[in-house]
Amino acid sequence: MVDRWVIITDDPTLSPAIPRTAASVPEDLYCPFCPGNEHLCPPEILANRRDDSQANDPQWKLRVIPNRSPLLVIEEDLKRMGEGIYDKVTGVGANEVIIETPVHARRQADMDEDELENVFWAYRDRIIDLKKDSRMRSVLIYKNSGAEAGATLEHSYSLLLALPIVPRDIVEELRGAEKHYAYKERCIYCDIVRQEIQLELRIVSETDSFLAIEPFAPRVPFETWIIPKRHSSRFEEIDSKEVGDLATIFRDVLLRLDRALNRPPFNYALHNAPFDKSYDKIYHWHMEIIPRIGIQGGLEWGSDLYVHSTAPEDAAAFLKGLVI
Amino acid sequence: MVDRWVIITDDPTLSPAIPRTAASVPEDLYCPFCPGNEHLCPPEILANRRDDSQANDPQWKLRVIPNRSPLLVIEEDLKRMGEGIYDKVTGVGANEVIIETPVHARRQADMDEDELENVFWAYRDRIIDLKKDSRMRSVLIYKNSGAEAGATLEHSYSLLLALPIVPRDIVEELRGAEKHYAYKERCIYCDIVRQEIQLELRIVSETDSFLAIEPFAPRVPFETWIIPKRHSSRFEEIDSKEVGDLATIFRDVLLRLDRALNRPPFNYALHNAPFDKSYDKIYHWHMEIIPRIGIQGGLEWGSDLYVHSTAPEDAAAFLKGLVI
Repeated sequence: MVDRWVIITDDPTLSPAIPRTAASVPEDLYCPFCPGNEHLCPPEILANRRDDSQANDPQWKLRVIPNRSPLLVIEEDLKRMGEGIYDKVTGVGANEVIIETPVHARRQADMDEDELENVFWAYRDRIIDLKKDSRMRSVLIYKNSGAEAGATLEHSYSLLLALPIVPRDIVEELRGAEKHYAYKERCIYCDIVRQEIQLELRIVSETDSFLAIEPFAPRVPFETWIIPKRHSSRFEEIDSKEVGDLATIFRDVLLRLDRALNRPPFNYALHNAPFDKSYDKIYHWHMEIIPRIGIQGGLEWGSDLYVHSTAPEDAAAFLKGLVI
Repeated sequence: MVDRWVIITDDPTLSPAIPRTAASVPEDLYCPFCPGNEHLCPPEILANRRDDSQANDPQWKLRVIPNRSPLLVIEEDLKRMGEGIYDKVTGVGANEVIIETPVHARRQADMDEDELENVFWAYRDRIIDLKKDSRMRSVLIYKNSGAEAGATLEHSYSLLLALPIVPRDIVEELRGAEKHYAYKERCIYCDIVRQEIQLELRIVSETDSFLAIEPFAPRVPFETWIIPKRHSSRFEEIDSKEVGDLATIFRDVLLRLDRALNRPPFNYALHNAPFDKSYDKIYHWHMEIIPRIGIQGGLEWGSDLYVHSTAPEDAAAFLKGLVI
C-alpha cells in the first residue's frame, strides 16, 4: 500500500534479539489520572460515569480530558503560511487524553470486553464531535503502552490529536489505495482481507466482523493489524455489533502478544480516513499494533527500510497456536 | 520535500527529556574488526593498506568486507514476483561493512580529517563498483553509532546495502523533488541551500563546498543535514577538494553534537540518487544525521508525525555557538 520494503532474512543473528523482558512501568509518585485527583487535570470533555455522579467527581469508569499541556490549541485561528519554500500552519488543533480506566495499574490486556468497548465508543464520540470543526482535516488516535513505547504514566490512557493537516503515513496509504482503486476499482484493504482469508497463512485471529493479521511486510516482528471485513473508511461509522467484535479480537490479540513476547511495550494507532468525503470509496480504516521490540538502526531512519528475521507467516502461526 | 509535518511545541514537558548520558558501548569480548582478527571475517573487498602489506594481513588503515551474515546475496538471480496483490523480490543485493579504523575504540568524532576522508573515498569507490551490476537500482550507506542506535560492535564501522529496489524515504524525496522541479525548474535542495544561506538562522557550520543545517522540520531535536552547495545528485561524483571539505564539516558537526548532547548515540545515512540517470537534474545528494535522543512513541510510528520542543533555529544557534 505504501511502497514500503522489508527485508526478511533467515539469519537470526542479524536482527536485534527479541527481548523477553516485560515493558517498564514509568514511575508515578502521584498519579493525576486516578480517581480523587480530578482537580489536577483540566475539566472533563466526556465521561462514562454513574448516573448519580457529577462532572469531574470520582465516580467514573472512563474520562476524556484535554491534554494539560496541549500540543495544539483549538482556540487559535488557522493560518497557513509560506516561509520561503517551506510551509507552516499555526498549531491549531485538539489534543485530548482518554483515561481508559479508574484503576491505576490495569493494562488494556487486563480489561474485560465491556471496558474495551467503552474505550472504542469514546474514540468514536470524540471523532464525531471534533469533525464538526471545519478547520480540522484528520484525527489521530494512538496509544503508548510501557515506558519504552513512550508512555509517561503507568495509568492506561490513549491520546488523540485533531489536526489541520493529514499526517504523512496516512497520505502515503491514501496514495497507494487511490492507485489500486484507479486500476482495479476495488478497495485495496478489501482485497487484502479477501486474500488473507483465502490463504489463511497470516491470520492471527478472526471474528464475524474483523480479521487480525500479520501484514505481508511487517516493520517489526509481530506487527499486527486489525481490519474490519466490511468496507468502511471511517472508524466513527462503526456499529454496536462491530464494537463488541472489535473488543473481542483486540483483547485476543493483546493476550497473544503478551504471551508471545512477555508483556512487551507496544504502540497502536487507529488509521482512519481524513474528514474529506472523497476518500470513502478508496480507504478502509484499521488498527496497526507495533510491539516495541528491538532497536531501530540507521537503516530504518535513513531509508524507511526494515530488516528482521521473523517472517509474518511464522509469527502468525506462533500467535495463533498459543492457548489463551 | 517529503510532505512531513513536525509539531514544535513550546512546552518542554511534553516531549521526552533529552538525556545527557553518553551512548552505551556494545560489549565486545572479542572484536572481529581489530587487526590480527582478519581471519574471523570474509576476505576484504577493498582496503587502504601499507604498500608492503598483503590483502587480509593486519597492516591496514581501512577495510571493506562483505557482511559475514549478509542480508542480501549478490550471487542470486533477481526475480520479481507477485504474491496476489503483494510484490516480492528475491534477496539479491550486496551488503558490506566498512571498517573505518584499525583502532578499536576510536569513534568518528575522534578521527582526524585524513581518516574521515578515507572513509568517504571508500564510500565513493564502493558505489562506483556496485553500480556496474545492472540488477541493482540504488545503494544505501548508513552508520549506527552507539548501542542505542543499533550498533552491535564498539569498533567503528559503516554499513552498505546495494539494492534491487529504491527504499521508500528516497522514493518520497524523489517525488517531492520532482514536483518542485516541474513547478520551478530548479532543484529543491539548491533552493534550500540558497534560502538557508540567506536566512542564516538554521546554519550550524559552513565550508566552501558544504552547508550543515538544522532542517526546517527536524524529526528529532538536533537532526542535522550536510548538503553540498554545488548541485550534484550523486555522492560518487565528489572531487578531492569536496572530500576534504566534507571531512572538515562532518568532523565539526560531530564535535558540536558530542559537546551539545554529551556524546549521543546517532545514525546517519547518505541520501544518494538511484542509479537511473533520469534523477540527475532533480535530486541532490546529502547526509542526514539523527542523534538518538528521546523515545519514539505511537505518534511517530502511527503517523510519521513528530513532536518535540526544540525549534531548529534554537538548536542551530546553540550548536553554532559552541567553542570546539
